Amino acid sequence: VAKAGLIGGGVIGAGWAARFLLNGWDDPDPEAPRKLAEVLENARASLPALSDLPLPAEGRLRFAASIAEAAAGADWVQESVPERLELKHRVIAEVQAANPLVPIGSSTSGFRPSQLQEGAAEPSRILVAHPFNPVYLLPLVELVPSPATAQQVLDAARLTVEGLGMHPLHVRKEIDAFIADRLLETVWREALWLVKDGVASTEDIDEAIRMGFGLRWAQMGLFETYRIAGGEGGMAHFIAQFGPCLHWPWSRLTDVPELDETLVETIAAQSDAQAAGRSIRELERIRDGNLVGILRALKDRDWGAGTVLNAHDDRRRQAVLDTVPDPAEALVLAHLRVLPSWIDYNGHMTESRYLFAASETTDAFLRLIGADLAYVAGGHSYYTAETHILHRGEARLGEALTGSVQILMADEKRLHLFVRIERGPEPVATLEQMLLHVDTKAGRTVPAPPAILDRLMPLAAAHANLPRPEGAGRRVGERPA
Amino acid sequence: VAKAGLIGGGVIGAGWAARFLLNGWDDPDPEAPRKLAEVLENARASLPALSDLPLPAEGRLRFAASIAEAAAGADWVQESVPERLELKHRVIAEVQAANPLVPIGSSTSGFRPSQLQEGAAEPSRILVAHPFNPVYLLPLVELVPSPATAQQVLDAARLTVEGLGMHPLHVRKEIDAFIADRLLETVWREALWLVKDGVASTEDIDEAIRMGFGLRWAQMGLFETYRIAGGEGGMAHFIAQFGPCLHWPWSRLTDVPELDETLVETIAAQSDAQAAGRSIRELERIRDGNLVGILRALKDRDWGAGTVLNAHDDRRRQAVLDTVPDPAEALVLAHLRVLPSWIDYNGHMTESRYLFAASETTDAFLRLIGADLAYVAGGHSYYTAETHILHRGEARLGEALTGSVQILMADEKRLHLFVRIERGPEPVATLEQMLLHVDTKAGRTVPAPPAILDRLMPLAAAHANLPRPEGAGRRVGERPA
Repeated sequence: VAKAGLIGGGVIGAGWAARFLLNGWDDPDPEAPRKLAEVLENARASLPALSDLPLPAEGRLRFAASIAEAAAGADWVQESVPERLELKHRVIAEVQAANPLVPIGSSTSGFRPSQLQEGAAEPSRILVAHPFNPVYLLPLVELVPSPATAQQVLDAARLTVEGLGMHPLHVRKEIDAFIADRLLETVWREALWLVKDGVASTEDIDEAIRMGFGLRWAQMGLFETYRIAGGEGGMAHFIAQFGPCLHWPWSRLTDVPELDETLVETIAAQSDAQAAGRSIRELERIRDGNLVGILRALKDRDWGAGTVLNAHDDRRRQAVLDTVPDPAEALVLAHLRVLPSWIDYNGHMTESRYLFAASETTDAFLRLIGADLAYVAGGHSYYTAETHILHRGEARLGEALTGSVQILMADEKRLHLFVRIERGPEPVATLEQMLLHVDTKAGRTVPAPPAILDRLMPLAAAHANLPRPEGAGRRVGERPA
Repeated sequence: VAKAGLIGGGVIGAGWAARFLLNGWDDPDPEAPRKLAEVLENARASLPALSDLPLPAEGRLRFAASIAEAAAGADWVQESVPERLELKHRVIAEVQAANPLVPIGSSTSGFRPSQLQEGAAEPSRILVAHPFNPVYLLPLVELVPSPATAQQVLDAARLTVEGLGMHPLHVRKEIDAFIADRLLETVWREALWLVKDGVASTEDIDEAIRMGFGLRWAQMGLFETYRIAGGEGGMAHFIAQFGPCLHWPWSRLTDVPELDETLVETIAAQSDAQAAGRSIRELERIRDGNLVGILRALKDRDWGAGTVLNAHDDRRRQAVLDTVPDPAEALVLAHLRVLPSWIDYNGHMTESRYLFAASETTDAFLRLIGADLAYVAGGHSYYTAETHILHRGEARLGEALTGSVQILMADEKRLHLFVRIERGPEPVATLEQMLLHVDTKAGRTVPAPPAILDRLMPLAAAHANLPRPEGAGRRVGERPA
C-alpha cells in the first residue's frame, strides 16, 4: 500500500485526504483537520458514484504527531497549509529532514515553485500540484515545476495524480497563479465591478454563467467553443470577427475595485438571499450531486472529464476482473452505488435501474467468458432476447448493491441466466434472462466459437449443481407455488 | 399559431429560427440563411431530447421577400443582422413601418438598447434579447431594456423567451456587453496573453477550464461556488481570505494584447492541432450531445438549467395530457427520442432503456388515472411487482419511439398492463407488467380509492374487447406456440 503524507487540514487538505484514502492510499496527517470528517463524508457519498468498478479497500487514515512522522516512509507528500511562504518553507524543511527524496506537491495557488524551493535542502523534489475544490470530484491538478524541479519528480507527480483518477495539467512556464486562477481572477474582478456599480446582483451574475457559457465550459473550453463559433473559417475567422471587441470599453480593464465594507456587505447580503436559507452543507451536497450527474453524462459520452474517469476505470478493470470468484457459486460480478438520478418520485430506485444493474452484471459475465468489447468489434455478441424481473424490495439513495450471475442453462447459441441484485445478503430484485449469441452483421443467431464455449461450459457445468432459484420460470401475475 | 419575424440568418439568427420552429411558432424570414439548414438539422437532433413530452407540431418556415413582409402580422420580431448600427437602424425602421407595435428583440452583443432606439418611430417597443450559441440548447437570454422601453414590452419578451424553454435574465442597467460577454471578454483577453507569452497553449487553457471550474459553473455560478468555499463563514469570510489577491499581479490588468499576425497564426495552429482533424460539423454534434447529457443530468436533479427545462415541460404537460386518445384503443402515452447515452457497445439502445421507455409510458398512464405526483405525495402509489420484456427489434440513435398501454386486467389492488414500445408501426419491444396499489408508508398493498377506480375501470372495460397481445403470459425461454 502506498503512503501519502498530507500536511494541512483545511478544505483543500481534507479534499486531498479523501482522494487518496478512497483510492486506497494510507494517509498519515500531522493534524486532526477540522474539515476532514465532513469532507470525507461528502466524498464517500459521491466519489464512488463516478466509477463503474468497486473502489479499492479504503486506505488507512492516521494522524501523525509531527510533520517528520507524516513524511517518514511516505511515497508522496502533499502540502496544503495556509498561504504564508515562511510557513511553507518550514514545512518543506521538516519534510526533507525526515525524507529527503520524497516528491513534495504544494497545493498553493499563491506561490511559484521557485519561491517554495528557496533555501530547501532538495529543491529538485518540489513542485506545485494545485487542485480545485471539491478535490474529491474535480479532475484538474495543475502541475507546475520550476527549472530546478527534477524531471523524474514531475513524472512521479503525473503518475500519482492519474492514479487518483485526476487530470495532470503540466504548466510549462512558472507564472503567478498558473492558468486557471488567472482566468478566475479576471472574472471575479469584473463581477465585483458589476455588483459595485449596481448593474447586476450576485444571483444575476451566477445565472448569466450557469444558464449560458458555464454549460459550454463543462465540456469544451474557451478556444474550442470559439473555433465552432467561427464556423468553417475556424479560429482565424473568429478572431477577425471578434478580436476588435477587445478595444471596446467592455470590461473594467484597469481598475481593482475597492473591497470596502459597503461592497462586502452588499455581496454578503445578496449571496444570503440567493442561498434562500440553504446551509453550506446542503449546498455542498447539492453541488456534489450535480457534479456527479454532469461527470457521469460526460463519462457516458467519453469526452472531457468523462474520458479521465473512463481511463481511471480502465486502468483498474483488469485487476478487478482478475479476482475471479469461486466458479461453483453464483458469480458476484458487479458492485453499484445507487446514484441520485436513479431515484424516482416514489423515493427509491427507479425500475429501469434494476435492469441496468443486471446489465452491468451480465456484461461483466460476458467479459469473463471472453465476449468483451474486442469480441463485439469482431462482429459477434450476445443479445438479450427476453427478461423477467421480480421486485423483492426497494433500493434507496447511496446504498451499495451487488449483482451476481447463476447460469441456468447454456448451449452453443443460448445463455439462460439468473441475476440477483442484492443489498448485502438481502435480495432487492431477481432477473431471469435469455441471451442469444448473434452474428451482428448478419443479424441472426449463430453458434458461439470454442474460445467462448471453453470458458462458458465449465462454469455452466459447475452451476448445474446449484439449487434452482426461486422465481425462475415465472409468468407475470402467476400466484406463488 | 404565433408568428415570429426573424431577420438575419447567421449562426444566431438560425439558432433562433430553430428555437421558434421547434416550439411551434411560424417563422417568416426575409433571407434564405446560409446556416439555417444545418442549424435546423442539429437542433432537430438535440432539442427534442431535452423534453419528456412530444414537442408541438413544428412551425412553418417561410422566407419573406422583404423585411416588411416578415414583420407584418408578427407577434415578435427578432433582429440578428450583423453588428453595424446603421444597418440595425434601417431594419428597425422597416419593421416599425410595417408593424409599429410589434416588440423587437435584438440579438446584438455590441450595442446598448438606447443606441438601437435612436431615431426609431417607436423606441418603446425595442429591447435587447441576447442569446448564446447554440441558441437551440442554451437557456440564457439577456433581456436589456433602456429607460425608454415599455414595461409591457419587457413582460412580453419574458413570456416569449420562457415559452421557448429559455431563461430570461433581466439586466437592470444598460451597460456595454451586458453581463455574460463582459465576463467572457476578461477571460478571452487573459487567455490571449497566456498564449502570446508562451505560458499555455489553447489546449492547456481549454483543459484548465473544462477539467476544473467549467464543471462547477455548469451548475452554480461564481458567487454561489465561492460561498461554499468560504465555509460556514460565508461570503464575507471568503472575501476576507481571497479578496486581497486582487492586488497581487496575477492577471494582465491593463493591457490589451496586440492581435498581430503572429499571435493569430499561433492560435489558429494550436487550435487546429487540438481539433485533431475534426470538422466544425463534427465538433458541433459532439458539443450538442454533451450539452444534452449535461442538461439532462441537471434536469434529473431539478437544478439550474434543469429547472428551466422542467418548468417548460410542466407548462406543456397538461395540454399534452388533455389530448386523451381513443379509450377503446391501446393508449399512446409516451414519445421518446433515443439519446446518445442510451446506446450501448452493440450500437443500439441498451436494454435497461426499453424498461425506461415503458416506465415513462406507465407513469403517463398513472397520471391519466389520477395517480400523479400529488397522489404519491399523499401516501399512495402504484409499485411495479414484476415485468416481462420481449425484445423484437433494436432501436438506434435519434429514432423516435412511442409507448402505448393496453390494460390486460385491473382490480382494486392490481393493474396488469401490456406496454408496446414502437418505432412507427414496428414493435421494438413489448413489456408485460403487474403493478400493485400500495400504502407507501405502511409498505403494503391496499385497495385504490374510488377517485382512481372511477377513471381506471371504464378504460379497463373498454380494453377488455381488444385482442390479447402476442407475448402476454410468456415465461422466459418458452418456445413460441
